[in-house]
Amino acid sequence: MVNTCQWGHNVRSCEESGRIARHGWLANLLPAPGGEELTRGFLQEVVDILLGYISKSSQRSSKVLDFHHPHQLKEGLECFSLDLPDQPETLEQILVDCRDTLKYGVRTGHPRFLNQLSSGLDVVGVAGEWLTSTANTNMFTYEVSPVFVLMEECLLKKMQSILGWSDDVGDGIFCPGGTISNLYSILVARYHFYPEVKTRGMGVLPQLALFTSEQVITPHTLLLTPYSSYVDNEWLYFHPFQSHYSVKKSAAVLGMGSENVFMVKCDESGKMIPAELESSIVTAKEKALVPFYVNATAGTTVYGAFDPLNAIADICQRYTLWMHVDVSVELFNFKYLFSRACSVTWNPHKMMGVPLQCSAILVKKRGLLQECNDFGAEYLFQTDKNYDVSYDTGDKSIQCGRHVDVFKLWLMWKAKGSEGFGSQVNKCLENAEYLYDQLQRRTDFELVLKNKPEHSNVCFWYIPPSLRGQPPGPDRDARLHQVAPRIKGRMMEKGSVMIGYQPLGDKVNFFRCVFSNPATQQEDIDFLLDEITRLGDI
Amino acid sequence: MVNTCQWGHNVRSCEESGRIARHGWLANLLPAPGGEELTRGFLQEVVDILLGYISKSSQRSSKVLDFHHPHQLKEGLECFSLDLPDQPETLEQILVDCRDTLKYGVRTGHPRFLNQLSSGLDVVGVAGEWLTSTANTNMFTYEVSPVFVLMEECLLKKMQSILGWSDDVGDGIFCPGGTISNLYSILVARYHFYPEVKTRGMGVLPQLALFTSEQVITPHTLLLTPYSSYVDNEWLYFHPFQSHYSVKKSAAVLGMGSENVFMVKCDESGKMIPAELESSIVTAKEKALVPFYVNATAGTTVYGAFDPLNAIADICQRYTLWMHVDVSVELFNFKYLFSRACSVTWNPHKMMGVPLQCSAILVKKRGLLQECNDFGAEYLFQTDKNYDVSYDTGDKSIQCGRHVDVFKLWLMWKAKGSEGFGSQVNKCLENAEYLYDQLQRRTDFELVLKNKPEHSNVCFWYIPPSLRGQPPGPDRDARLHQVAPRIKGRMMEKGSVMIGYQPLGDKVNFFRCVFSNPATQQEDIDFLLDEITRLGDI
Repeated sequence: MVNTCQWGHNVRSCEESGRIARHGWLANLLPAPGGEELTRGFLQEVVDILLGYISKSSQRSSKVLDFHHPHQLKEGLECFSLDLPDQPETLEQILVDCRDTLKYGVRTGHPRFLNQLSSGLDVVGVAGEWLTSTANTNMFTYEVSPVFVLMEECLLKKMQSILGWSDDVGDGIFCPGGTISNLYSILVARYHFYPEVKTRGMGVLPQLALFTSEQVITPHTLLLTPYSSYVDNEWLYFHPFQSHYSVKKSAAVLGMGSENVFMVKCDESGKMIPAELESSIVTAKEKALVPFYVNATAGTTVYGAFDPLNAIADICQRYTLWMHVDVSVELFNFKYLFSRACSVTWNPHKMMGVPLQCSAILVKKRGLLQECNDFGAEYLFQTDKNYDVSYDTGDKSIQCGRHVDVFKLWLMWKAKGSEGFGSQVNKCLENAEYLYDQLQRRTDFELVLKNKPEHSNVCFWYIPPSLRGQPPGPDRDARLHQVAPRIKGRMMEKGSVMIGYQPLGDKVNFFRCVFSNPATQQEDIDFLLDEITRLGDI
Repeated sequence: MVNTCQWGHNVRSCEESGRIARHGWLANLLPAPGGEELTRGFLQEVVDILLGYISKSSQRSSKVLDFHHPHQLKEGLECFSLDLPDQPETLEQILVDCRDTLKYGVRTGHPRFLNQLSSGLDVVGVAGEWLTSTANTNMFTYEVSPVFVLMEECLLKKMQSILGWSDDVGDGIFCPGGTISNLYSILVARYHFYPEVKTRGMGVLPQLALFTSEQVITPHTLLLTPYSSYVDNEWLYFHPFQSHYSVKKSAAVLGMGSENVFMVKCDESGKMIPAELESSIVTAKEKALVPFYVNATAGTTVYGAFDPLNAIADICQRYTLWMHVDVSVELFNFKYLFSRACSVTWNPHKMMGVPLQCSAILVKKRGLLQECNDFGAEYLFQTDKNYDVSYDTGDKSIQCGRHVDVFKLWLMWKAKGSEGFGSQVNKCLENAEYLYDQLQRRTDFELVLKNKPEHSNVCFWYIPPSLRGQPPGPDRDARLHQVAPRIKGRMMEKGSVMIGYQPLGDKVNFFRCVFSNPATQQEDIDFLLDEITRLGDI
């Protein structure tokens, strides 16, 4: 046991009452009578494990992960068994299970975890989640979540003011992730134009068309990889998606059909081309579809590109379309961009570093979320309660029960202030610029986009010695395509660093480095490039 | 400070480095260099607050809640301000904020919190959530969640075997709450019958009809309350919903229209009447609708009633309909019922006492979830990874990022075993029977259903002295209708106990007591009835 002092207390007290603490059982914990000391001892042990994990995650000498293949973990490693028993296990075994779960997982807070836009381990955010899970309540009514419901209101108002929306128009709700937030935006847009859809369904509506950005997909004739496909005498990539993944998915869910999502062509840096948007709208109309919704992106997943929001807003205004902006970046430094949006997806679990999940859909038309989604279940939303029931906000949601995702954000906002979030993001942008500078200097790397990064994404190829000097062409591409996956595999097996890769359009597999982890320093960026070189040259 | 020893350490170490720990800042915590000791000290303080809360929540002498109206909390109470600052606050203030958040919240683990089917505070479950939030990762890929992805697989297989499904057919996914699980069931049912809907939308489908149970709604001519409404020369209740809340909501979201959800009549105990289901199906067909989905309920929200699943399955088979079962009860004691379902919503955060949220949709047709929802984003789901990518299960989901809801359940299963869950539920059923017995004996209470409870729900009226002996009729009903809200309001202001109430069909407001909190004992049930009497007689 890690903390013999704490546990020792329990051993004594439990022996007195005839139980054996070191082999205590869940049934002896609270609410069992006399279970308080064992409960404190057990949770303290858990916390000691977690504190050790947090501390180790921040050390560069620790591995980012201890990789095992699925079959290895399933077979069971050193007494770590995933199997679910009929009979209870001892609390001692539960602590071992906790340790092993962390041991075989991925340290997303490690300074060298650069794999996802959600990374880092904010200590105050973690404290917020610990409290949230201890409070163990539900966002559906003020009755059971008085404080959290008010915190949500407070956060939404603040976020709306940052968007530049006036106090009396905005509305919103926190929901489980950015894709669901985007789904909400389509849902309320549809209801805004066609409120009858709620009761009567899509059958009474015209065929709707949606628009989002696409990376241009170029047929590639020679590359033979597991994810290419022979169609019409040409080898094609499977179409890689960038921003429209969630839009297509949501269109399918909402009964609109993914093929009615028009993917608007982008320029080389990944920005939607306004003229292309307009011509897509015209095309849709010619096909007797009714355009109603445009999803613009601020910070695309791979390139971190910003669509030209003002030009898109002009088009939306001209054609009376709902303009949604999916914001993957943080908003403190870019807020002026979003005042014309009808709705915004804001994901504090990305650049703001809030623990997963924390995402909000903000809607400029007050009351729309409620009208669109309410079905007034009487067993929850009684109107004859002893308080102002307008705070029973659960019926704005497509969920019934809703996890409390607001407290961690609220607590972090208290601890950082708006300014703290801003400077945290600036740090990430500096890291991106540093990486960009390094890549420019080195001959063994090649940037995917030549311009300075607009945001924290930097995309690049590593060119191994065998490919240097080889002329561009299908053969080089085919070989270059295999470099990133091979290096990534070695990285994971070694556990030294984690970074993502993917192909995009006519570009073969490249690394995407994305900075949102406040733990990452320049030395980690140096290490990343050196490590890629080491692993790539084998 | 609660823990002067822990904090003292920090004071010393921080003073050495020139900072003042008692007024430490988030910026000094990890990943800041040298932040380890302050981090440990801060988190230990948080844990001490949480341990104190857990301990107090289990004490009957504590209040269930310290009620304040929204405007009171918003105005700020004893330095507790919800406002979000531009400048950071000290860690000391953050700890105060944590304490206040808990102080003004609701203790859902208190033995006398009987308000919701999600209640109690399972210590191992809480430990699981603390670990989950510390691990701070995402369910979309094996790459970032190797252990949790395998735990999900393991849990789903176990749950499928409990449902009586053979090993090679079942599939499923954990999702954010029971309503979303029900939404999934409709989504996959639609895709099963009409796979073209994914790409082409509802426009190419016939108008679909869905079926779920309804409580019979009887016009009530005399009752004047804030939630009755004068329509067509008759006073009507707003229709209270029982099981079909989530089905109507989902039908609206999915573009099917809520009016195409047929609410099948139930018998007096709240069970769907099979003959009524069949006649609803015939009616739908006569209206040129195409029936495709039946939502049966095992444990309705208010009465805890079980629909006759076998009879419903026969009808579904005859008409080739998808049969979904929404299970609000636990499944260990009732598993034999579900073998014929095409899909099942299983909510471990209800009777099994797992911290919020934990809900699974189980689908009997393997691969259907994936086919229905996948859009293969290349930046997440590369096919050229170094491991078996069939474990990248994220594309089965309508979300992209997905919170880890499986670990707490997995850990509780380890700590309780299947048998532990079974006996925990039996305890709740015993409590329900005890309450039923007490109510039968007392002349100041009246049962809503005369029969023994089928599950843990017990519904009853309190009859205050002024109404005893008054003949049944509209006048008595109108007065009785106000009794439960008035008592509930007093309960909340006093903070002594929490229990829900609602009207249903032609029945005026009644209390619904639901047992899922393992902390609740017979003495709490005695207290509840005595407290209602005390508060109701004022």
